[in-house]
Amino acid sequence: MLKGKMVIGQSGGPTTVINQSLVGAILAARQQDAITGILGAHHGLAGIMNEDFIDLTTQSVEQLEDVANTPAAALGSVRLKPGRAECEKVFEVFKKHDVRYFFYIGGNDSAETAHIIAEMAKQENYDFCTVHIPKTIDNDLRVTDHCPGFASAARFVALAFMGDDRDNAALSGVKINVVMGRDAGFLTAASALARQDEGQGPHLIYVPEKTFDVAKFQSDVKAVMAKYGRCVVAVSEGITDAEGQPVMTSGERDSHGNLQLSGTGALGDFLSGKVKEAYGDEVVRVRADTFGYLQRSFPSIVSEVDAQEARMVGDFGVHHAVANAEPGSVAIRRLSSSPYKSECFITPLSTVAREATELKDEYINEAGNDVTQAWLDYVSPLVGALPKIGQLF
Amino acid sequence: MLKGKMVIGQSGGPTTVINQSLVGAILAARQQDAITGILGAHHGLAGIMNEDFIDLTTQSVEQLEDVANTPAAALGSVRLKPGRAECEKVFEVFKKHDVRYFFYIGGNDSAETAHIIAEMAKQENYDFCTVHIPKTIDNDLRVTDHCPGFASAARFVALAFMGDDRDNAALSGVKINVVMGRDAGFLTAASALARQDEGQGPHLIYVPEKTFDVAKFQSDVKAVMAKYGRCVVAVSEGITDAEGQPVMTSGERDSHGNLQLSGTGALGDFLSGKVKEAYGDEVVRVRADTFGYLQRSFPSIVSEVDAQEARMVGDFGVHHAVANAEPGSVAIRRLSSSPYKSECFITPLSTVAREATELKDEYINEAGNDVTQAWLDYVSPLVGALPKIGQLF
Repeated sequence: MLKGKMVIGQSGGPTTVINQSLVGAILAARQQDAITGILGAHHGLAGIMNEDFIDLTTQSVEQLEDVANTPAAALGSVRLKPGRAECEKVFEVFKKHDVRYFFYIGGNDSAETAHIIAEMAKQENYDFCTVHIPKTIDNDLRVTDHCPGFASAARFVALAFMGDDRDNAALSGVKINVVMGRDAGFLTAASALARQDEGQGPHLIYVPEKTFDVAKFQSDVKAVMAKYGRCVVAVSEGITDAEGQPVMTSGERDSHGNLQLSGTGALGDFLSGKVKEAYGDEVVRVRADTFGYLQRSFPSIVSEVDAQEARMVGDFGVHHAVANAEPGSVAIRRLSSSPYKSECFITPLSTVAREATELKDEYINEAGNDVTQAWLDYVSPLVGALPKIGQLF
Repeated sequence: MLKGKMVIGQSGGPTTVINQSLVGAILAARQQDAITGILGAHHGLAGIMNEDFIDLTTQSVEQLEDVANTPAAALGSVRLKPGRAECEKVFEVFKKHDVRYFFYIGGNDSAETAHIIAEMAKQENYDFCTVHIPKTIDNDLRVTDHCPGFASAARFVALAFMGDDRDNAALSGVKINVVMGRDAGFLTAASALARQDEGQGPHLIYVPEKTFDVAKFQSDVKAVMAKYGRCVVAVSEGITDAEGQPVMTSGERDSHGNLQLSGTGALGDFLSGKVKEAYGDEVVRVRADTFGYLQRSFPSIVSEVDAQEARMVGDFGVHHAVANAEPGSVAIRRLSSSPYKSECFITPLSTVAREATELKDEYINEAGNDVTQAWLDYVSPLVGALPKIGQLF
């Protein structure tokens, strides 16, 4: 039996359920004879390199449950793609503190870090087990059916579009909402869950997986406006043009002739300008919002499935490590969509590290401006039941 | 007894509970012998002028309850400050359809509309009763203790800051969030409810009631950063400079030398630039979000008090009109804060129409960058209990 201390850390953009994974791992580790100490790294790798640890054996279960239900990384997070030197420093600290288990909660970059450190340990014949615990609102990890953190962010997006579509129905016009997702459109696609009835928005959905064509966008909007007298648009922040360049750095000028600035609302403003341009002298009410950080941090609306699974991957990671002393990444296998059932399994770190995945073709419609039923079947059980929309018209 | 049809309409920016007021009024009206028909105006005054009505006597209670729990104006809303001619047209339609009761759900502009039409009826000796039913997320109506719609938007803002503050604690830096409120800082001030413990944000709160000084803002941020290593800022979209001009139209250039454009993220970007400027060559992580329309439309997190009171003002308005045939605006009187208790009363339309109110001085701290305990005592019972924040550090 591999016996020694464990270090756990959180990395990358936080989610609303990443602390469920942390608490799942802590509570499991407290039951293990093989684990002689539980060190929380303050701000991930940065904390390890600085030996900035917190003892995670002392908190009451009640405090930990409060932490589990609180959004964002309670240990502090970090944005750091470590080079060889940093990984060596980390490994040195691990040896110094007799750390034999390392659990890193994060995305594909964190899996890569875990992988490098696991390889170092192997080369030095240091008995050591590192396990990557998945989290990302982007849902872009390979192998796993989906990523803890995604469903709650998707729930935020779906609720946001439900309410905003009603707002748009009350005061008609074109409304553009920019959703997180630089390279993958999973979150943006989740906006489709807001629709419960014919005519409800979002009416158009654009994801980074498909080339974004401004002229096509303009005619799409006009077609929806002609049909419903209003139009709600979901668009990923990362949409790109035919050259693969982000739409916002294409050097386009807006309808007022100003060169677009980068900025928090820039893409929404740019697209609003394009809609106004398409209508020429005809006055159309156009508004844009950029959902921003609330998508990954808004409390009290987490998906129940997401919270449970985030807890489960943390717990499973620790049990796997102690039982097998074998590095890997925890992944989720969907057993059934109705009723929804899933289980954890371990996949080699190399299968998750570095590379990311994106929305499958079958989830995007032919026109590239909406999702398919297959997507709704995939995402709906993860996000859970949504409030019912009442209408008079 | 004044006997005839009633018209009900919704006006201005929707809220998440404005349909509670609508349903409260419909259900009360269905019980009244004096009310011989219930006409819903499609898009407020615009619908009345076009005689675009929906019969509100036919829907099941179940459907109405779904509507009550759905954000945004189910009848459709309108942004229209009617002139004399429009009011005359409205009055003509009322006479044509034997409308004797008019209920208008909206803010101070809607109260003004109701007032004009009430005066017309008086001059023409047309037996008629018009009642204004209050709603606004801005909370800026006179006389009433607070406005239906405000507390739910305030709850959104408080929850948003709770989560975002944890996000900022995980990945430190300066985070600026722009909150709705052009002339009044009520919603922005509600961000303070996110704080449960020393060191939690928002650390700085700027409202339109106080002059915004860029240099003071920069030194405020640096002071908070020096103390906590991070800083979360809540700022009203309507902050103004010493000349009373909106900060965003002051012709300032950002840190890159670009003249600021108006746009959805413009104020946040401008303030971010000012923070970076204050730090010169020192690299500080600065981010900004603009909460946008979600504040007034996000479903499933409404304040219970708000939903109940929104229902209550609709119900009370109808009962008052039938019993007294006297025009007026429904207002809320707070009877007790702990336990929270309130009641409705009627105030003359002239006391609510046109003019708006703003945050009292006693609710803003001396430095003009935070709220006071008196504010928290006022707002907390309206917003209701918030989730508990768990921390490890």
